[in-house]
Amino acid sequence: MQVAHLLYDRFTALDIVGPHDVLGRLPGVEPVFVAERPGPVRNDSGTMAIVADRALEEVPAPDVIVVPGGFGTRLLLEREPLLAWLAQAHRTSTWTTSVCTGSLLLAAAGLLDGVPATTHWLARERLASLGAQVVNERVVHDGRIVTAAGVSPGIDMALRLVELMAGPEAAQAIQLGIEYDPAPPSDAGSPETAPAAIVDAVTAAFRAREAELTAGSHTA
Amino acid sequence: MQVAHLLYDRFTALDIVGPHDVLGRLPGVEPVFVAERPGPVRNDSGTMAIVADRALEEVPAPDVIVVPGGFGTRLLLEREPLLAWLAQAHRTSTWTTSVCTGSLLLAAAGLLDGVPATTHWLARERLASLGAQVVNERVVHDGRIVTAAGVSPGIDMALRLVELMAGPEAAQAIQLGIEYDPAPPSDAGSPETAPAAIVDAVTAAFRAREAELTAGSHTA
Repeated sequence: MQVAHLLYDRFTALDIVGPHDVLGRLPGVEPVFVAERPGPVRNDSGTMAIVADRALEEVPAPDVIVVPGGFGTRLLLEREPLLAWLAQAHRTSTWTTSVCTGSLLLAAAGLLDGVPATTHWLARERLASLGAQVVNERVVHDGRIVTAAGVSPGIDMALRLVELMAGPEAAQAIQLGIEYDPAPPSDAGSPETAPAAIVDAVTAAFRAREAELTAGSHTA
Repeated sequence: MQVAHLLYDRFTALDIVGPHDVLGRLPGVEPVFVAERPGPVRNDSGTMAIVADRALEEVPAPDVIVVPGGFGTRLLLEREPLLAWLAQAHRTSTWTTSVCTGSLLLAAAGLLDGVPATTHWLARERLASLGAQVVNERVVHDGRIVTAAGVSPGIDMALRLVELMAGPEAAQAIQLGIEYDPAPPSDAGSPETAPAAIVDAVTAAFRAREAELTAGSHTA
């Protein structure tokens, strides 16, 4: 079972590595990292690069598609080679998935019109404006499409996907293998439970970064 | 504040990307991926590569060291260039940290003699045999050394480190930014709570893989 992990300039690394390190532990899975061009692709802070081993056209019909989020998504909402690949690959995929703002790309490719889906909590309005039916949950599963909220929920999404593909015992074995018995230091992991001052500070920083990134772009 | 993320052949990707995507969100942090030689370094399943942007000798005195685990650690327990770098870098680091079996490398470098530390639950005996005082906790903090259990606990470790470095509000902001409000599908994330049959199956698979990897090596 081929699992295509999509890379693009300014992706968020944990969005794609979380699902990879869960799905890749399922027997029979063949992960492949793809991008418009093979080679190193840098993340959204520019601090690390993951190698795309294949070009999009070399992986036309993966069984599973995983699309990470990242500030780079804002520059790709009209990016034809990538969106065309997503739309085409989705025709034959068993599962099409996203983490964080990766759902913006699924929506831009026309895959989420009226479809229940989620994204990073700070991109919910943007996702709705692209036609999705936004649901404020950590993982949303609708037909062949599974979307996760921002960054770390990719791990939960992938475990859900393993359950759907191979049953609960397979998911439990992987959960144990990665010791996913999480112990967050506080209940600040959701905008619904975090202190208001923290929500405001994170919102301001996110908006500033988004504006900075798209300032020089005509697709902003 | 320079944070050195160590790469070596057959590392576990989530072990290093989890901490990177937490620590890298702290203002003032400069992450750098290092390895014996710069260039792509492949993970323990051979399915992806992260680029080491610098050689070890180019990063002699990082403020923070992060050592991931992976099956590759078993082949590095006598690997001088790497262990010598760890020992030397630890002399001046503010924090020296590991995830999963990364603690085996800290121990092999002589940094954990009698020190309370943790590792992947299937490597506890190995870590004890290398001189550490093994503690069965998800994150263990002793002086300047912070160790995490297997794979996903690197996220918890990094959030703890942010608390120690910059206070609880900084950790909360990052926790919210990555929506770390985890929802594991079951309580199978720890050998103490997972079903016995799952523990047995994961143990057997782990031992088989370890044996396979070290079969051709004199350091096994």
